[in-house]
Amino acid sequence: MKVAILGYGTVGSGVYEVLKMNADYIAQGVGEHLEIKYVLDLRDFPGQDVEKVLTHDFNDILNDPEVRVVAEVMGGEHPAYEFSKAALEAGKSVCTSNKELVSKHGAELLRIAREHKCSYFFEASVGGGIPIIRPLNNALTADEILEIRGIVNGTTNYILTRMRDVGMDFDEALAEAQANGYAERNPAADIEGLDAARKTSILASLANRAQIDCEDIYTEGITKITAADIAYAKKLKANIKLLSLTKREAGKTYAMVAPVMIRSNSQLYFINGVFNAIMVKGNAVGDLMFYGSGAGKLPTASAVVADMIQAAKHKGVTVDTIWDEKKLKPEPKDTMRFRFFIRVPAEEADKANKAFGIGEVVDAGIPSEYGFVTDYIREADFEELSKDLHVINRIRCDFKYK
Amino acid sequence: MKVAILGYGTVGSGVYEVLKMNADYIAQGVGEHLEIKYVLDLRDFPGQDVEKVLTHDFNDILNDPEVRVVAEVMGGEHPAYEFSKAALEAGKSVCTSNKELVSKHGAELLRIAREHKCSYFFEASVGGGIPIIRPLNNALTADEILEIRGIVNGTTNYILTRMRDVGMDFDEALAEAQANGYAERNPAADIEGLDAARKTSILASLANRAQIDCEDIYTEGITKITAADIAYAKKLKANIKLLSLTKREAGKTYAMVAPVMIRSNSQLYFINGVFNAIMVKGNAVGDLMFYGSGAGKLPTASAVVADMIQAAKHKGVTVDTIWDEKKLKPEPKDTMRFRFFIRVPAEEADKANKAFGIGEVVDAGIPSEYGFVTDYIREADFEELSKDLHVINRIRCDFKYK
Repeated sequence: MKVAILGYGTVGSGVYEVLKMNADYIAQGVGEHLEIKYVLDLRDFPGQDVEKVLTHDFNDILNDPEVRVVAEVMGGEHPAYEFSKAALEAGKSVCTSNKELVSKHGAELLRIAREHKCSYFFEASVGGGIPIIRPLNNALTADEILEIRGIVNGTTNYILTRMRDVGMDFDEALAEAQANGYAERNPAADIEGLDAARKTSILASLANRAQIDCEDIYTEGITKITAADIAYAKKLKANIKLLSLTKREAGKTYAMVAPVMIRSNSQLYFINGVFNAIMVKGNAVGDLMFYGSGAGKLPTASAVVADMIQAAKHKGVTVDTIWDEKKLKPEPKDTMRFRFFIRVPAEEADKANKAFGIGEVVDAGIPSEYGFVTDYIREADFEELSKDLHVINRIRCDFKYK
Repeated sequence: MKVAILGYGTVGSGVYEVLKMNADYIAQGVGEHLEIKYVLDLRDFPGQDVEKVLTHDFNDILNDPEVRVVAEVMGGEHPAYEFSKAALEAGKSVCTSNKELVSKHGAELLRIAREHKCSYFFEASVGGGIPIIRPLNNALTADEILEIRGIVNGTTNYILTRMRDVGMDFDEALAEAQANGYAERNPAADIEGLDAARKTSILASLANRAQIDCEDIYTEGITKITAADIAYAKKLKANIKLLSLTKREAGKTYAMVAPVMIRSNSQLYFINGVFNAIMVKGNAVGDLMFYGSGAGKLPTASAVVADMIQAAKHKGVTVDTIWDEKKLKPEPKDTMRFRFFIRVPAEEADKANKAFGIGEVVDAGIPSEYGFVTDYIREADFEELSKDLHVINRIRCDFKYK
């Protein structure tokens, strides 16, 4: 069985490496060897092993009927979209790690795959090497999915972990993450929450079997979290985590990406560094959690290659994923309910107490401030009640009011 | 699509309930409704809903060509083995939670399924509702599985959690577990490690794609763990967990079930109460963990029904699992290497230090004892070096020597 890899960046070279490293093991599972016939990249790689199969022209792959499975690991919307669509229309299964593309066009590409008796797989688009898409598709099928909440961005989790463990400020922790290769030179997509929002869009779409757009998910990053917030969190025996949240309740769907304070009654509390973890609540199975490396060359490649194996084993048929193209708008953010941890200037303590009632007061030794936790309230009510306060910062909380 | 349930005990009634509760949701996934045509049980259930489909005769199910999928949730080896075999030979897919049967006859029943164009599924046999069998079969196929280590028995994890959190002794914690329905009246299979050994046999067989018998896995339960051991563990910042272990190293396979002290650098440290968690290490993906309810009516039923859905979607074809019938004997226990935490009478301190070298000395305030941790040594060497000591207890350790 001949395969092709679109893109020889970090993930693409990982796919190449895993296919070589585990060739015999993989062949045992598929029943035949997966042979890399083409690698598409704009660059040349003189002297490298990959040179022998390198092409600069996608049509070489598209027009070669021997190629039945394509790994799209280029990233970005274009030309990944056009290439994926063309490959599927030619009956070639496509396996991708491209969350941007899946989030925007997943439902459509699944339909095209269905129409051409091939498959569109995207296990690596969420949680890197962690099996989460496939469990949602074929292991948790007996359950109505009530809620998914996860740490789906390793960069921000690394930064928050370092801020807590070493007392670093945000900028310092970000610089360290960049120095260690855990954050990109332009870190905006990670720290502003966009990467997590794309993954949330995919998870929420699968849980709801409909299209939930990234743009319809209220998204907050971690750039406003300071060392002072971490100090308060410690006092509250909490960790601040950037959470991907989606929930179905009474027929309504909610989704959000935001930093949330969680306590140790949630397993997510214990997820540190670049690791990812995704909790899924089903109406029969209860709470499950999937944990592992959410990024990285080989873990991500492992998921792409597992998809390629699945595609190879199902030549000529579609392994389907239920994901309707019809749009589902999550409920407005205003209707969601959280507790809020709030910091105001000390002189506004009375005003704050009058607005919110006296909640859990937190003294993290920060002078001239008043920090407290509210009861569960609607986002809209929070906005209304806090509009006359000089809120220094506020962070959603998940734990029970003491 | 007509289905049948063999056994209307805890899991069987759960399967019945999940199929009813999520009927429409399931139908959306399968493309048709799964209708329960028969439930087999020796007992009558007068006045209950199930009465309408109850039969006492397995032949009613076997001889009904409409029934394409059978849930075997009776437990025990006989007659579950005969029923499963007959159903598969009749081309009916079988989905089971029966770890005893899968551990002994899984490879054989998979072959029979293959020969009759149907499937044998056993997701619920390990980890209750946690998807672990399916990920091993179709998500982690790009990886060579290097190691699986897990907490696969909720009863013992509950007992160990209570001993640590409340300072209970073993008998007390067991009695509480029984009172809460977390341990059976006859708890031997759980507390002696047999249940965990069966699950380890299944996991090790899948990781090695060969038959590893339960009887060939060295198994130790938790009955010798005392409040004093827990006190020592606390001093060592460790938790004692009953671990299911299997490892491939340099072409050799190891397997064991035993209580092990682990520290917080392992996610398994944080798994409390009746929950299960299974870590899988692949040569590309690194460490993954799967966490959830390892037992219980609805979680286990959720896994069985997900298998039934998978079977229903693949009518007339086999969804295969690679598990060869040829036996693989794990390496002898003597060759495995651990650190050991050892307790000896105080007067044997010098003798112990002479035998093992001075390791990490642990003072848990227990009079007239000497407790210490050895370096990594082979099991055989431990036996030899400790043979002249009056070892009060010894527990394997996983953490690095300080």
